Amino acid sequence: MKLLKDAILERGRVKDGDVLKVDAFLNHQMDVELINEIGREFHRLYKGQGVNKILTIEASGIGIACIAAQHFGVPVVFVKKTQSRNIDGEVYTSKVTSFTHQREYDVIVSKNFLNENDRVLLIDDFLAKGSALLGLIELVRQSGATIVGAGICIEKGFDTGGKLVRSEGVHVESLAIIKEFKDGKIVFED
Amino acid sequence: MKLLKDAILERGRVKDGDVLKVDAFLNHQMDVELINEIGREFHRLYKGQGVNKILTIEASGIGIACIAAQHFGVPVVFVKKTQSRNIDGEVYTSKVTSFTHQREYDVIVSKNFLNENDRVLLIDDFLAKGSALLGLIELVRQSGATIVGAGICIEKGFDTGGKLVRSEGVHVESLAIIKEFKDGKIVFED
Repeated sequence: MKLLKDAILERGRVKDGDVLKVDAFLNHQMDVELINEIGREFHRLYKGQGVNKILTIEASGIGIACIAAQHFGVPVVFVKKTQSRNIDGEVYTSKVTSFTHQREYDVIVSKNFLNENDRVLLIDDFLAKGSALLGLIELVRQSGATIVGAGICIEKGFDTGGKLVRSEGVHVESLAIIKEFKDGKIVFED
Repeated sequence: MKLLKDAILERGRVKDGDVLKVDAFLNHQMDVELINEIGREFHRLYKGQGVNKILTIEASGIGIACIAAQHFGVPVVFVKKTQSRNIDGEVYTSKVTSFTHQREYDVIVSKNFLNENDRVLLIDDFLAKGSALLGLIELVRQSGATIVGAGICIEKGFDTGGKLVRSEGVHVESLAIIKEFKDGKIVFED
C-alpha cells in the first residue's frame, strides 16, 4: 500500500539496526486519516468473505481495528493482556511473548464474544516474530470460529513470524512488507 | 445521550452491587456503530473550540478516541501504561491507579506528540474515581498544552472522580451519568 509505505519512509525512523519506530502515526500518535485508508484497504482485500467480527489485541491494534471495522460494518473484539476483575464468566486463554517489553503475557477473550459461528478477521499493526498473531489464532481455534485471514499494517519480512503464521494455514495480507534495513534505510519487498 | 443510555440498560450488566459491565459493546467487544454516534456527540459538544489533538489512555479508550477523532479531523495520542523499549526520547510521566486491576501504573507520553501549542480533548470510556483522567490532566499540564475538556462515555456520578476533575477546572461532558444502582437496577441522572 503506497500511502502506508510513503508514511513509513517519511515519518518512520530506524533505530538500533532493525527497530522501526512508527509512533508518529501508527502506535502512539495515530493518524486517523491514514488509518482510515488502511481500513479501506483491508476491506478491499477481505470483503465478500463473510467477515462478521474483527479480532485484535490491546493496545495498538484497537484503533486500527475499530476504524477498519467501520468499513465492514462489524464489531471489534479486543483480546486483553491481563486477567481483569471485570472479565467474568469463562474465557479462552493463550500466551503471547512481547519482544518489545521482554515479557510474556496471558491473553484472554470472553467466550461470550467469540464462537463457532463467527468468521473472524485478525488485525494488528506489526508482524515480526508472530507471537501476538499466533496467540490470536490459538484463541480463535479454541472458540471454534473460522479465521478468514489476518490484516497486518507492517510485516518484517526478514523475521520469522510471517512464515510461522502462513505455515499455520492462515491467509495473511500485509500492507507494507520490509525486506531489510540496509545502512539504516528501509527496503520494502515489491 | 439516549442511544448510549439505552445500550447500557439493554446490554450492560450490574455485578457485585456497583460494578457496571459494558463489555458487550464498549470495552471488550466494541459496537463501532454506537461508538461512531458517541464520537459524533463529542464533536457536537466540543466543535469550534480549536481541538487539534485527542488524548486517551490505553486500552479501552483508544478505539473510542480514534473514531471520535474522525469527526474532528485530528490525530489521537494514546498514553501508555508501561515504559516500552520502543518509546525513546523524553517522555512526560505520571501515575494512575487502576481499581479494576488493583495496581498502580506509570503512564507516559512522548514529548514529541504533546506541546504547548496543542489544544487537547481528553477521551475515556469511564469516569469513576478519576485516577486515569487526573493522570492525563497531569501529563497535559506538564506539556504546557491547553485542556479544552474531557469527553467521557459513562460517569459514575455517585463516585468521587467527577467532582475531583471538575474541581481541577476541567470541563467534563459525560454522555451517561449513573446516579445510583438501586436493587441492581441502573438509575441515570437527568
